[in-house]
Amino acid sequence: MRKEHLKEIQKYMEEFKTVKVTPLRFRRSKFLKVKSAKYRLNNGKEIIREKIVKNNKDGSAVIIVPVTKENQMIIAVEPRVNTKETVGIGFPAGYIEKHESVIEAAKRELQEETGYEAEELTELGHGFYQDEGCYSAYNRIVLATGCVKVSQQMLDKDEFIHYSLCSIADAYEMLDNGIIKGGNSQLAMLRAKELLKRK
Amino acid sequence: MRKEHLKEIQKYMEEFKTVKVTPLRFRRSKFLKVKSAKYRLNNGKEIIREKIVKNNKDGSAVIIVPVTKENQMIIAVEPRVNTKETVGIGFPAGYIEKHESVIEAAKRELQEETGYEAEELTELGHGFYQDEGCYSAYNRIVLATGCVKVSQQMLDKDEFIHYSLCSIADAYEMLDNGIIKGGNSQLAMLRAKELLKRK
Repeated sequence: MRKEHLKEIQKYMEEFKTVKVTPLRFRRSKFLKVKSAKYRLNNGKEIIREKIVKNNKDGSAVIIVPVTKENQMIIAVEPRVNTKETVGIGFPAGYIEKHESVIEAAKRELQEETGYEAEELTELGHGFYQDEGCYSAYNRIVLATGCVKVSQQMLDKDEFIHYSLCSIADAYEMLDNGIIKGGNSQLAMLRAKELLKRK
Repeated sequence: MRKEHLKEIQKYMEEFKTVKVTPLRFRRSKFLKVKSAKYRLNNGKEIIREKIVKNNKDGSAVIIVPVTKENQMIIAVEPRVNTKETVGIGFPAGYIEKHESVIEAAKRELQEETGYEAEELTELGHGFYQDEGCYSAYNRIVLATGCVKVSQQMLDKDEFIHYSLCSIADAYEMLDNGIIKGGNSQLAMLRAKELLKRK
């Protein structure tokens, strides 16, 4: 892997690292909510299960594997405060809005998070439940090829994302070395692997 | 794919289908809880984030890809009430207990859910965060080969799992056709693919 690329990523990770955590003990959760229900199965058995609702929606997301016109992969670095590392390296991704198709959501998220626009967007696989035990989110993977920078990032005020370009080989090296740790990104990379090899 | 195998899986799916849902509006959640905290990043910015805690733990799980001595894959069918289908087809899996190693958890879960014991257990990859935005669960994948039936299933009283044997090719057909919809199982299968080809 190119040294200067690793350095860039390390700089971004350093910037986004959590340095202090203050638990908010009495704050009502706004984004995540838990609902309970009793389910009767076809075999007559009854079970009680809980379910996470994200922002009053199911939380289905799209993960984008972006490759530029110059055949570079776009990697995103962002705070992931719930992980041990407190920072995550992966792909642009975001929730699919109600009115959007998968491809529209991928196009929007890619531009918001990186300022890039793709020449071609292709859905990979049939999608997957991110945690079928605990919520309904059904995520989708989109390969975005021929990406060109068309604008600045358009991030929400409490959203922090740095992106970084690297060769496809370097990105897969980061997957193999366990540097890319998010399941969404790992699945997206493994799905994209065969297609990218053929290109 | 073999017709009788598909029929068996369909029978199990039918049995576990949810036929009635009764929301429990005022029940306090027992298994899933949401915690909030304020995080200060290294760049001086402060963000508030929520986190799901599963049974007072991080919810890290092991997913087992079991292959019998006769080179059959063991597929698990179980109620997944939070999904559209209400039933999931995938692999044996379960939470890693505090005192356990990944391999010990895989061995235990495999026997509890199927009654099979493996000759060899091998961890695949470095693990992955299942939802790095919302919780800390860091899941692991274990390939279990040379599996032999040694006991009955040992399920909790509100746990329902049927398992089914099929050829490795049939299992990958179910992945390609989008019948296996859980991200955990999909990632496990893609990780196991190269190793299984070599066998």
